[in-house]
Amino acid sequence: MLIVQKFGGSSVANADRVKNVAARIAESAKTGARLVVALSAQGDTTDELIAKAQEISPKPSKREIDMLLATGEQQSVALMAMALHEIGVQAVSLNGDQAGIKASATHSNARINRISPERIVNELNQGRVVLVAGFQGINRYGDVTTLGRGGSDTTAVALAAALDADLCEIYTDVDGVYTADPRVVKNARKISAITYDEMLELASMGAGVLHNRSVELAKKFDISLVVRSSMTREEGTLIRKDSIERTLITGVAIDKDAALISIIGVENAPGMAYRVFGALAAEKISIDIILQSVGRDGAKDISFTVSRKDLPAALETLAKNKERIDYDRLTHEPKIAKLSIVGAGMESNPGVAANMFEALYNGAVNINMISTSEIKISVLIDEKDAERAANIVHDHFLSKENLNLEIFA
Amino acid sequence: MLIVQKFGGSSVANADRVKNVAARIAESAKTGARLVVALSAQGDTTDELIAKAQEISPKPSKREIDMLLATGEQQSVALMAMALHEIGVQAVSLNGDQAGIKASATHSNARINRISPERIVNELNQGRVVLVAGFQGINRYGDVTTLGRGGSDTTAVALAAALDADLCEIYTDVDGVYTADPRVVKNARKISAITYDEMLELASMGAGVLHNRSVELAKKFDISLVVRSSMTREEGTLIRKDSIERTLITGVAIDKDAALISIIGVENAPGMAYRVFGALAAEKISIDIILQSVGRDGAKDISFTVSRKDLPAALETLAKNKERIDYDRLTHEPKIAKLSIVGAGMESNPGVAANMFEALYNGAVNINMISTSEIKISVLIDEKDAERAANIVHDHFLSKENLNLEIFA
Repeated sequence: MLIVQKFGGSSVANADRVKNVAARIAESAKTGARLVVALSAQGDTTDELIAKAQEISPKPSKREIDMLLATGEQQSVALMAMALHEIGVQAVSLNGDQAGIKASATHSNARINRISPERIVNELNQGRVVLVAGFQGINRYGDVTTLGRGGSDTTAVALAAALDADLCEIYTDVDGVYTADPRVVKNARKISAITYDEMLELASMGAGVLHNRSVELAKKFDISLVVRSSMTREEGTLIRKDSIERTLITGVAIDKDAALISIIGVENAPGMAYRVFGALAAEKISIDIILQSVGRDGAKDISFTVSRKDLPAALETLAKNKERIDYDRLTHEPKIAKLSIVGAGMESNPGVAANMFEALYNGAVNINMISTSEIKISVLIDEKDAERAANIVHDHFLSKENLNLEIFA
Repeated sequence: MLIVQKFGGSSVANADRVKNVAARIAESAKTGARLVVALSAQGDTTDELIAKAQEISPKPSKREIDMLLATGEQQSVALMAMALHEIGVQAVSLNGDQAGIKASATHSNARINRISPERIVNELNQGRVVLVAGFQGINRYGDVTTLGRGGSDTTAVALAAALDADLCEIYTDVDGVYTADPRVVKNARKISAITYDEMLELASMGAGVLHNRSVELAKKFDISLVVRSSMTREEGTLIRKDSIERTLITGVAIDKDAALISIIGVENAPGMAYRVFGALAAEKISIDIILQSVGRDGAKDISFTVSRKDLPAALETLAKNKERIDYDRLTHEPKIAKLSIVGAGMESNPGVAANMFEALYNGAVNINMISTSEIKISVLIDEKDAERAANIVHDHFLSKENLNLEIFA
């Protein structure tokens, strides 16, 4: 049995938490499992180091930022090794280079290309827990590169893949993946199992506790992931290829960062969409949902959502290109929300969308736009309705009583 | 022209000082010199990291301490690279591994075995200032080892040797080597040039600004060293094989850490000294000056000095071995001081010792013991006389008027 574990920055933020995590690792080690543990930098260390750099240079070189930040994780693994020794557990710390983590040359946002696990395997064979600095690797020039956001999760999953681990446990400050944000939806429940694709859809809507890159990597190499809390003994959420829990809907997510733009009266000619979205892409504005409808006199209306921070830039870009795109006018609505339901089960159950719309209709929630994928249905609604709508939809599909809704079977 | 520079922890303690040092480096770079710069960890970083480790483990593994502490110097070089970029100087930071510094396997007190300078040379050839993390290397297992006290000085000198540098400049918080401690001897002057051997004698008496290991290494590879301040523009002290300044005496040093032990009435038989000092060596007690004299009835008295902290252990060891050594009694004097004069010129001038004793006699300073080497004369005196005696001897040999005392010619 080989297990890769990962503990985040808040789990190792101070000496007491380091000792707490060491005790957890010791428990796992006592089961006889071979253990490789990826760690993040302690608490605010990374932010403090960035602040130090900013004092010296407002826009420091990414290579040097990587060189600087990588020290945070190296400190974490060294301290954890000491804590494990202190309670009689054999352990050794390795930085990204020593762990054989070969990354791409792109500083501050590198990808792991491969892992040469000889040193790790050698240490495991000597009965040691191997502590690996997360978030970092070494590129082909021998330089330190960091992996960008969610980097330590990615390190853990990549290690699990390279070592053919039986399990990858991501310890974090929440105790699993929920059917909805518990701060918003009062009946939100922890999900015991979820598929990679469901997790990806939930994560991309901001509901996730894992960065998409790590989930994608786990999917690619079929690594079973468990997300659980380092503070409690609760069972976490298992993320794998096939969900055991055969519920139709896995979760509900709200995204309140959306703004809606409509271009009214676009000429119904080929290449129009390219002109609109090409102009926006040139300004690095990301688009989420796009809807195109036939409007008055055969002209088209094109509606789409952007992040709220991008709204002014998007409107300005479209105004600048008015002649080229050739439209009547623009409208925009900054205060909308996107409500989504995600579930691998809906693929073979065409009634799900209708059921969702019916629940919202019964709750008097107005739907502005609809967008669907194989395992997700999203609707745009007024921001003021968002939390109420999330509770309505959650209770409709995910309340305990409705878990095995026969109508969808 | 290739120059290796080294800046200590106080010289890079905060953002302003990092920028100040960057400006100095930039000046040197503008002369067209190729520059390799070794840096220590910022200010109290090393102490803070040790405190962090202590919170977790009272006696942490040395391997993990090295892994932890090495991050301090890595942070320094990354921040310095940013500061240099900010003022338009091309620079790159390297940790000990990247710089090719191969050290022995002994953790926390490693020696540099060799340097593989390919990466450094390659970076120099691309016109970059190369910043190297001091105090650290990589051992044959790929583990980080640190070099112990004075480690960054040693890094700088070793780099100078490996790169066949023209000069090695050690920037520190004092502006050079003085003829005596300026806090004690009011007429102390900065020395413009000094030989390796003189520096070694001064350093071993606690007067040095450089660790002996780095001076020994410089001597071995004949590297010209300059010690100077990072805060001022003053010329520093040049340390090299032959002193240009042909003065007789280079410096005066006081060591107040000495305690005197006398073993009275030791039998005059072979192997006696071995029994005494073998017993002390077994307890890891270091001996400084040893004097053996014929006492009453043909028996001998053996006197020697130890560090004050070792006095109780030394007395206990001797008491335990009373029968084996076979002596009458022990006496000890904890409050003595060692006053030394150092100078390569005294080798060929037999009158120096007598002159020193005369000056002390005129000053009514009582001499307890005398010890001499080729370039050093030490006397043991009462602690209460120490500072007065240092001034007397300094003024006798080193006051401006006496610099070329013809009596010794």
